[in-house]
Amino acid sequence: MTPHAFDDALQLVAQGGGRYQGSTQPAWWNMVGPFGGVTAAVALQAIMLHPERLGDPISLTVNFASGLAQGTFTVSAQPVRTNRSTQHWVVTLSQDDAQGVGSVVLTATAITAVRRSTWSANDLPMPAVPPPDNLARTQPPAGTVEWLNRYDMRLISGPIPSRWDGGAASPDPALASLSRLWVRDEPARTLDFAALAAMADVFFPRIWLRRAVPVPVGTVSLTVYFHATAPQLLETATGYLLGQARGQAFCNGYFDQAGQLWNAAGHLLATTHQLVYYKE
Amino acid sequence: MTPHAFDDALQLVAQGGGRYQGSTQPAWWNMVGPFGGVTAAVALQAIMLHPERLGDPISLTVNFASGLAQGTFTVSAQPVRTNRSTQHWVVTLSQDDAQGVGSVVLTATAITAVRRSTWSANDLPMPAVPPPDNLARTQPPAGTVEWLNRYDMRLISGPIPSRWDGGAASPDPALASLSRLWVRDEPARTLDFAALAAMADVFFPRIWLRRAVPVPVGTVSLTVYFHATAPQLLETATGYLLGQARGQAFCNGYFDQAGQLWNAAGHLLATTHQLVYYKE
Repeated sequence: MTPHAFDDALQLVAQGGGRYQGSTQPAWWNMVGPFGGVTAAVALQAIMLHPERLGDPISLTVNFASGLAQGTFTVSAQPVRTNRSTQHWVVTLSQDDAQGVGSVVLTATAITAVRRSTWSANDLPMPAVPPPDNLARTQPPAGTVEWLNRYDMRLISGPIPSRWDGGAASPDPALASLSRLWVRDEPARTLDFAALAAMADVFFPRIWLRRAVPVPVGTVSLTVYFHATAPQLLETATGYLLGQARGQAFCNGYFDQAGQLWNAAGHLLATTHQLVYYKE
Repeated sequence: MTPHAFDDALQLVAQGGGRYQGSTQPAWWNMVGPFGGVTAAVALQAIMLHPERLGDPISLTVNFASGLAQGTFTVSAQPVRTNRSTQHWVVTLSQDDAQGVGSVVLTATAITAVRRSTWSANDLPMPAVPPPDNLARTQPPAGTVEWLNRYDMRLISGPIPSRWDGGAASPDPALASLSRLWVRDEPARTLDFAALAAMADVFFPRIWLRRAVPVPVGTVSLTVYFHATAPQLLETATGYLLGQARGQAFCNGYFDQAGQLWNAAGHLLATTHQLVYYKE
């Protein structure tokens, strides 16, 4: 059986001392490097593979310092503090330039934890939306970036503008930058923490929706809070997730967006935020 | 003139190589260490003081690995990648134990950037609330933690429960964990990035409001996105900020909250998120 494209991207070869070597995959190519979500997943995967890991991820923040060039890279995942039930990680992803000089292309911090069963609640109930089977798969536009083909997305609201005419999507600021969609890996793949981290980044830049102007953009920082336990991910299995994202503040070259990912049963699996550079 | 208590807390002595020594301040004491917001501000201050800093902060993520013990600490702020207009930082705060062995108590990453003037917008308009002058200062309860006295807070909605009776604050999940308040330093102090980072953490734990049960809690990760330029902070001067926070997901020992800080003119200066440990 051919490995899943997502597993291909996560393939890391241990070099010892928390260092791993991986390589970029054409299947995940975005405009000037791989899809940021898959790169965030690779950073997390180095932690998942680390022999000293304690517990499961609860928090991941990835800062994108530069586009990843095609080829090999090194990820270093260091557990800098291990407590009784939590562990703190610092991750760096670097690449050598033509002269063999290594440059940092990504920094990340993460926390893993052993969870205990406690009182739990969800203050962001899943919005009422049509089920994925009632919606057609949203076809990526012809000639689009490759990684979009790695997901089955079924858009509910807030599409990429069909006309780049500078008209805001909605006069209501609360809706102007809101998108909702069902998403799963294509082909289907059982959900794990790495896949959840990647899906936290599937939303196209809110500023495109907000302005209907295709300004150059790039995520500079992505945070994912994991609210799911490993058994809940297994239960979610290959089901679609409902993703929602909206912009918050757009100011002088950077905007932020807030997002949520629920499984079809309505469990809020992850909340996510990102800060995105935009050009004009 | 006596220095402001916040400036006392930010006092760092350069040791060279991006390392700084500071010490905890009794004026900022929380339950088992200093107020997390002031510790986050100290982590940012090491960047602000660094001679190689490029631009102003746009993003800061602080992971609290352990309570800070009373006494001195070392902060190391390293610019791991400097681009044309952005710079990526890794920060570690550590303390020596009785045997002189250093332990990491905090990790952080941050991005600083030179901003350019661009199209800007705010998709989270400030809610309509009474102005601070129409509200009395909310008196911290007698015998409370010391750092609360460092802020003039004027609560608008979502107070700390007066009865710990296990009753949810509101039957509506959208309001059950929502608080709004005006806040400024006490005594007043002109706003800067470090103060804004600290104020992103002034909200009491959402789970107390949500459940009216005083469970033990501790922030494990805090992210602040700065949407203000340095001139906008100077314009805000010593004015009150409107802070808003609400809980999102509460699951098996960890919940997250999302927050916003506007100045009185309605400019959204910062958005913030945190993940908080809770015991039961």
